[in-house]
Amino acid sequence: MKGSKSAKPRRRHALVHASELLTGAGVRRKDGRRPQEEDLGRIHDGAVVYESGDPKAGPGPGKVLWAGPTDEMPREYRRVPAKDLRGKHAVVPGLVDSHTHLIFDGNRASEFAARCGGATYEEIARNGGGIATSVAATRAASPARLEALATQRLKAMAAFGVRTIEIKSGYGLSLESELKVLEVIPRLQAKFPELTLVPTFLGAHDFPKDRERGDYLRELIDVMIPEVARRKLAQACDVFIDRGYYTVEEGRRILAQATKHGLKTKVHADELANTESAAFAAEVGALSADHLLCVSEKGIQALAHSKRTVAALLPGTAFYLKAPHAPARRLIDAGACVAISTDFNPGSSVCLSLPAILTIAALYLGLTRAELFASVTYNAAKALGLESRKGTIEAGRDADLAVLPFATFEEIYYNFAWVP
Amino acid sequence: MKGSKSAKPRRRHALVHASELLTGAGVRRKDGRRPQEEDLGRIHDGAVVYESGDPKAGPGPGKVLWAGPTDEMPREYRRVPAKDLRGKHAVVPGLVDSHTHLIFDGNRASEFAARCGGATYEEIARNGGGIATSVAATRAASPARLEALATQRLKAMAAFGVRTIEIKSGYGLSLESELKVLEVIPRLQAKFPELTLVPTFLGAHDFPKDRERGDYLRELIDVMIPEVARRKLAQACDVFIDRGYYTVEEGRRILAQATKHGLKTKVHADELANTESAAFAAEVGALSADHLLCVSEKGIQALAHSKRTVAALLPGTAFYLKAPHAPARRLIDAGACVAISTDFNPGSSVCLSLPAILTIAALYLGLTRAELFASVTYNAAKALGLESRKGTIEAGRDADLAVLPFATFEEIYYNFAWVP
Repeated sequence: MKGSKSAKPRRRHALVHASELLTGAGVRRKDGRRPQEEDLGRIHDGAVVYESGDPKAGPGPGKVLWAGPTDEMPREYRRVPAKDLRGKHAVVPGLVDSHTHLIFDGNRASEFAARCGGATYEEIARNGGGIATSVAATRAASPARLEALATQRLKAMAAFGVRTIEIKSGYGLSLESELKVLEVIPRLQAKFPELTLVPTFLGAHDFPKDRERGDYLRELIDVMIPEVARRKLAQACDVFIDRGYYTVEEGRRILAQATKHGLKTKVHADELANTESAAFAAEVGALSADHLLCVSEKGIQALAHSKRTVAALLPGTAFYLKAPHAPARRLIDAGACVAISTDFNPGSSVCLSLPAILTIAALYLGLTRAELFASVTYNAAKALGLESRKGTIEAGRDADLAVLPFATFEEIYYNFAWVP
Repeated sequence: MKGSKSAKPRRRHALVHASELLTGAGVRRKDGRRPQEEDLGRIHDGAVVYESGDPKAGPGPGKVLWAGPTDEMPREYRRVPAKDLRGKHAVVPGLVDSHTHLIFDGNRASEFAARCGGATYEEIARNGGGIATSVAATRAASPARLEALATQRLKAMAAFGVRTIEIKSGYGLSLESELKVLEVIPRLQAKFPELTLVPTFLGAHDFPKDRERGDYLRELIDVMIPEVARRKLAQACDVFIDRGYYTVEEGRRILAQATKHGLKTKVHADELANTESAAFAAEVGALSADHLLCVSEKGIQALAHSKRTVAALLPGTAFYLKAPHAPARRLIDAGACVAISTDFNPGSSVCLSLPAILTIAALYLGLTRAELFASVTYNAAKALGLESRKGTIEAGRDADLAVLPFATFEEIYYNFAWVP
């Protein structure tokens, strides 16, 4: 047996007899148009052949070599060690969660219970609630503590088939603590080589209470962004443009500096009020405009006409805030590219389950199966600038695969809050 | 070591250093009045001493011997083998799910996806959707298949700290298939001796498509109820009184027969339309009136003045149906005893996570921590007629304990769709 083992091709793997293999190839080919059922690329009794990742080339998966019906697998792959899914498991592109605030310390459960039970914001603030709680706790936490917390959270996310996860800083709000948070991400990446972690700098999440507004903004632009870029601690820079947070003009200065330093850009747009920040995101060619609960018709049209900027919807947040949902149907019907993500954070979306968020999206955003599929695969990859590699299962693209515990894709959102 | 083991008291166990022990004793003592924070009986650094269940006495847990602060544990219990929770885990009464349709076959995920994506009821019915799908599949399923499906579901429920689970029949709708479903429950009980399974006969879930209405009703009353009672296959009889289902007068005949045969009674009340079935449930002294999305002020007052009938709310169902939620605050403020349950079923609440249902309840029913706690412990036990034994942690009562993976109770609903 040992002898025969060494004769097998190394680092090649196959999955065979998937109940359904959804390649999503049609979603990619029609990039920017409304996903339809035929774009799922559904193959009954499907198979995938792929290579392992190369540790020398860094973390992340290898490449897909072939995908198709099991009984059409080319002869050259028939001796590849295969896992037989016995028609019980669907295989879909590894899911992509394009918007998370994964790294923070501080428990706000008591504040949540008080809010649900009718406590006023003043009462909660008096008891030290709100984002300030998370900032104080995150600043006080050791890097090891933050890494341990994030490790648990990543394990939970990955158990649902998520393979690419964006992680924002933003609970530090000082040079030192923002860097501390971002420095955790490479260590997490080393710990989870099968995942692709995408760091985003969100120093502009809020203004810290202990600093003068203009003073913090100057440090953000003049010191923090250059330092984060120089140390390659983030791939993109995000800014929370909203009533009571950053203005569009402040966002413009921040993202201009980010672009100058080689960072991609993202915008928390039109969440609490309409500031036309979705239109701004499209104007500056941001990867995504996220939230959009209060997006205007102007913003919808700007996103619909953008070839670049994805509308990233976060229905868990509307659920937690009891706010009206983003106009997903209007965005899609106008032609926008829509992603759906968890927005996992300690205040307004304490949810690590991307499938549970999809259940909310299915029911309350009114999306079809094909639209939901695209929103957590190809479209979400595009919201991270990774659409050339991720979000579909095709030869030559990343072998990010999710083997579901169900025979069909839609069972991941039909079964609400399921346990992996 | 072996020698010393035999010297230890047998079948006694202790949990020590719980971050918080919520006994819920105050909820029981004030039965029927609005639960307040002090009724939680919160003990910081708590301990519980209890006995194992006695296999000779049948399934179910033993009794609590003592509960209190760890440092006040009586000398006689100090040599009991103790599990040290190291201040990291809260201990609460084992949760009670008082309304589930656990046993059925048939997958309705595709129908759900079609409905969310905008398909009409006619389109879904044309593709064979709706409850008829579940009835046909359940009738066709072998007892072993139903047992295997229910086993997986019970494991998931129990992982969330649920210890008492009601299970309704109702996807058979014929003598033979209703009995087949109910006969699965004793086998499940034998498989899960640590749980308490409470079978309910719901032959009056719908009218079967293959029978004349009056004909089925006669068989239900004259044959099915006596047979179920004679064979002790259910503790209660339930009826779905609603527009398009059973009338109040039909419900009255069904429940009168059930009572005559020694069964307790329950009512699916005022879910799709108001039929004053909540008031009817209170009038006949049913254990619970369940759903109540469309309950009238008359129904609220009837439940508020009942010492017996619990208002069992199922917010997962309103979430799935996108219907307005039951008026939980008005019920509680009027004085009704409110339970919250999953209503796990394949059509309108495909959710095995009682904590996820509590998150919906917290946000959309506006309940306080104490009210939510009572709704899944003592009040839910009362909805099953088990309030003399279950739902609080006190000496002499059942040792149904839930050791949570969190330090506080509210984290089970603050963290949405968490993984056990």
